Order: sequence, then structure tokens, then C-alpha cells
Amino acid sequence: MPVDPAAPITITAYDWVPDFAKGQVRDLRVRWALEEVGQRYAVRLLPQGAQKQPAHRALQPFGQVPTYEEEGLTLFESGAIVWHIAERFPGLMPAGAAARARSLEWTFAAMNTLEPVITDRAMATLFEAGEPWSAPRLPSIDARIEERLREAEDRLADAEWFAGAFGPGDLMMVSVLRMLDGTPHLASHPRLADFVARGTARPAFQRAMADHLAGFTGQPPAAFAEAS
Amino acid sequence: MPVDPAAPITITAYDWVPDFAKGQVRDLRVRWALEEVGQRYAVRLLPQGAQKQPAHRALQPFGQVPTYEEEGLTLFESGAIVWHIAERFPGLMPAGAAARARSLEWTFAAMNTLEPVITDRAMATLFEAGEPWSAPRLPSIDARIEERLREAEDRLADAEWFAGAFGPGDLMMVSVLRMLDGTPHLASHPRLADFVARGTARPAFQRAMADHLAGFTGQPPAAFAEAS
Repeated sequence: MPVDPAAPITITAYDWVPDFAKGQVRDLRVRWALEEVGQRYAVRLLPQGAQKQPAHRALQPFGQVPTYEEEGLTLFESGAIVWHIAERFPGLMPAGAAARARSLEWTFAAMNTLEPVITDRAMATLFEAGEPWSAPRLPSIDARIEERLREAEDRLADAEWFAGAFGPGDLMMVSVLRMLDGTPHLASHPRLADFVARGTARPAFQRAMADHLAGFTGQPPAAFAEAS
Repeated sequence: MPVDPAAPITITAYDWVPDFAKGQVRDLRVRWALEEVGQRYAVRLLPQGAQKQPAHRALQPFGQVPTYEEEGLTLFESGAIVWHIAERFPGLMPAGAAARARSLEWTFAAMNTLEPVITDRAMATLFEAGEPWSAPRLPSIDARIEERLREAEDRLADAEWFAGAFGPGDLMMVSVLRMLDGTPHLASHPRLADFVARGTARPAFQRAMADHLAGFTGQPPAAFAEAS
């Protein structure tokens, strides 16, 4: 198992999240990239609340996980960390300038074109589910998601990966599209559902997910403990 | 003037947008990066609607601008294009691994942490202004923007640029934060307002903006022409 307290790479993750967030916190993407390149890493688990404290904000100004530390280099933003890992270690970045360009554009497409509309749905159905505007707005959000999925599926067509060969762009596209697991969206786009299945069947993803889930060893913060 | 129909680089932009979008379409970011590195470029102006046709979708699967073409290399996503330009030509990427890492994380922070909440406000106040859910939801959107701005301003503190030296990360941070021009948000964060002013005062930005605005030589599509 590559999680290794003595490894020269350290990432951060939460020791507890609500059940709906397990399998979705963004340290998973970084673990997956590290597994693809075969790098051992250590994990510093944060109790809920610690991410907003000055010690963590020095690494991550927005008070989130993951962060990445490697021999004096620090990084935040999962997209930046995954791209850095792909550049730094062999095994994830596809060879050649054209394949690298494809990976770059799909990394940003995942982060800037697809993830915002998909997280918007999570806002309406989870974080702001009780707000009076959320239910009336959901059809508009779903229409925007459907447009993006139709466009992505048209581009993927019968290809295995968006960027030609698996790399950081497809790792991020799988990571973003699988946020729709459990919604009706993927079922109506079978080629995207198959794409997500291909990505999550990779042994590196499976190992990353197991270690991601094994990290939730902490206690809920007081507000959650009282509510349950 | 670096816009040059014979240049080996070609980008796409619209020949017409509504007034509120002038100065905000994402070709501006790419023009700015090209000006920073002193590269001439050609522009293929698209009439409204052409971005959704197969010829353009072959370059940009989501039917948007900008795209970037250079000697057989094509790219979409403004973040990917700006990052590529900074890597490809000297003059924009700061020197050294640490400064490059800072630029990478701020490029993704602009695209994935700040722009989504800021475009959410544009959805509520422009594109979905007439929908019944938009006005009640605005305070929640504004609270999320304020949290992000407070965090960004705390990190910037008295520094000139987020990444230490001006590069693709700060170019994207300026581009995203200036989408808040004309809203109350920047006025209450004077260090961010000064940061935007420093960025947009750069001669390269000024030239890019002039050429961006000069490109709007087309006619509104029928739906807009009928409405006005």
C-alpha cells in the first residue's frame, strides 16, 4: 500500500466528512494520480475545522483540502496538483506534444466547463436543498448539465479516452463525471457511463479509493454529532 | 499592432456580443497572454451561431470561443491556452520551479475556485435575471463570493501579485476578478481592487482590450435584432 508516513510527498485529507461526501473529496484525485505514477505518499488527516485554521490556510488560502508538499514545494488546487504530478513523474502524462495539449485542455474542461455545472447541482440538492429557490431552479441546472454531457459524449464518440491516451485530462474528466453517480444524468449517456466505468476500474483508482475511504477515522464535529 | 492575418497563430472570437459581454469574452485572456509574450496572431471572427456549427465544434466541443491554432496544434479552454502560451514563449512564465508552481495553482484557483462563484452571479443577474429564483438566491451567491474574496485578499496581503511575479496565474486572477467590476464586491476589498487595477494597467492588457473591442464589427443575430 503506497500510503507511507515516511514518504517524501505529503498530502492533506479530512478525517471525517458526511456520508454523501465520502468518495468525492478532492484528495481522491491526487491519490489516484500518485497511484498512476507509483509514488508513495504520506497523508496528514485534518479534523473538521482545522482546514480553516491559520496553519492549514498557510498552505491552502481557501481553507480546503487537498494540499501537496514535496521537498519544499507546496501546491494547492487538485487540478494543479494532478497536472504537476503528471509532469513530475513518468507514468501518467501521454507522450508527445499533441497528446500533452489534449490532456491540458481536458484538464481545464473538467475543472472549468463541467465541474461548475455539476457542483451547482450538488448545491441545489445537498448543501442548499432546504432553500426555497433550489427545487424551482433544478430543471434549469439539469438542462445545462444535459447540454454539456451531450457535447462531451458527441466528442468522445467511440473513443476510449477524451485525450487519446489516458492522462491527467481523462483522470479529471472521470473524477468530475462520476460526481453524477446516483443522478439520472449518466444513465441517459451510456458512452459517458462506460467512460466513467473504464476510469474507475483502473487498479490505481481502486487503490486510491480504498485509501481515501480508510482515512475517515475521525469523529464528526460537535454540530454534526448533536444533529445525529 | 500584433493582430496580423498572416501570423502563424490563429484564435477565434465573436464578431458580436451583447453590450454587457463586451470586454468579458474569454478571447481577451488569450489576446492578453499573446501580448505579454509579444506574439502576433490572426483572429477568425465568428458570427453568433457559428460557434455551435460542426466546423467550430471540431475545434471546441462545447461550442464556445476562444480556440487556438498554431502549426497543427489546436487547443480550447482559455486556461489551457494561456498556460500553453506561457510555456511556449518566453515573457510570461516566471523563472524557477517555485514560481512556476505558484502560477499553476493560481491559474487553477482562478478557474475552479473563483470563476464559478462569480459566473454564478452573472447567471442570477443577467442570464436568468427574470427567473423567480434568481433574486431570492442572490444573497447566498454574494455571501460565497465575499468569503472567497476575503480569503484571496488575506493571501494577497501587501504583495503585488498572488504568484510572487506576474505570470499566467495572476493574468487569470485579474481576468476573473475584473468580472466583478460594477458590482459592490471589489469596492469592499481595496487590495483586490488595486490588484485588478495593476493588472489592467499593463500595456499588454490595454492592447489586448483595444483589439478585443475592435473585433465587434458584426451584426446581432435575428433574435437580438428583433428584440431591439
